Amino acid sequence: MPNIVHRVGMAKVAPERVYWAVSTKEGFASLWTVQTIGQAIEGDFLAFRFAGNGAGTGFEVLELLPDKRAAFKCIDGPKEWLDTHLAGETILLFKHCGWREEGEFMHHCSTQWGYFLVGLKKFLEGGEGHPYGGNFEPISGWSK
Amino acid sequence: MPNIVHRVGMAKVAPERVYWAVSTKEGFASLWTVQTIGQAIEGDFLAFRFAGNGAGTGFEVLELLPDKRAAFKCIDGPKEWLDTHLAGETILLFKHCGWREEGEFMHHCSTQWGYFLVGLKKFLEGGEGHPYGGNFEPISGWSK
Repeated sequence: MPNIVHRVGMAKVAPERVYWAVSTKEGFASLWTVQTIGQAIEGDFLAFRFAGNGAGTGFEVLELLPDKRAAFKCIDGPKEWLDTHLAGETILLFKHCGWREEGEFMHHCSTQWGYFLVGLKKFLEGGEGHPYGGNFEPISGWSK
Repeated sequence: MPNIVHRVGMAKVAPERVYWAVSTKEGFASLWTVQTIGQAIEGDFLAFRFAGNGAGTGFEVLELLPDKRAAFKCIDGPKEWLDTHLAGETILLFKHCGWREEGEFMHHCSTQWGYFLVGLKKFLEGGEGHPYGGNFEPISGWSK
């Protein structure tokens, strides 16, 4: 099944900080959307809301390997996302795996993830990121 | 085989302009690297140079469908890229297809393509892009 994969290096940023970004509620609020809800505890859930278009998604926390790897499973959200997996590893290797088909929505999400990850790099290096609800600019409106 | 896929919408940009960006020497110089060499003619070749690290790549022009789709085949460059295909279609659906394995270099290229495509969006919407040799900032150094 198709996978979205990214790799982002960050200057003078400790692995703990990168891990923080992809393993905690506060980290995801800096990376993805300020409306991040829930607890980043294995077996628990995180919800991500995007008030502008009402859309949101929820993930089960599958694995937290401190300073190494965090992995999540989609249990709520767009039908294309259900059962897909997110994983972040330091350096930061970032993956969104298990898409059923390589449709236009996957194209969209791929670019949008790239955008968020470049924002995360800026933020962790001391600048400003652009999560949804922050300085976010959409790459392409979805619905098309 | 794994594919890199992206989707980028642009406000008030004609399909001809998007097609120009992914089908001409001048377009690629705005999108990817100012050191774009050769002719964008079916059966001919385009070379892309990145003087900073000496790396470069060459593509055969496979298909030019005016204002619709442009496709290319890698014939020179990093071994992971050989025989992979690039294709741009308006809206802009952008693909880099046929990777043999989902290695760390593919993660890197995925984010880097996202970065270039966001730059293209800025440029075509009237701002400034960031091709290599222009306002380029690397997402992560390659070699690691």
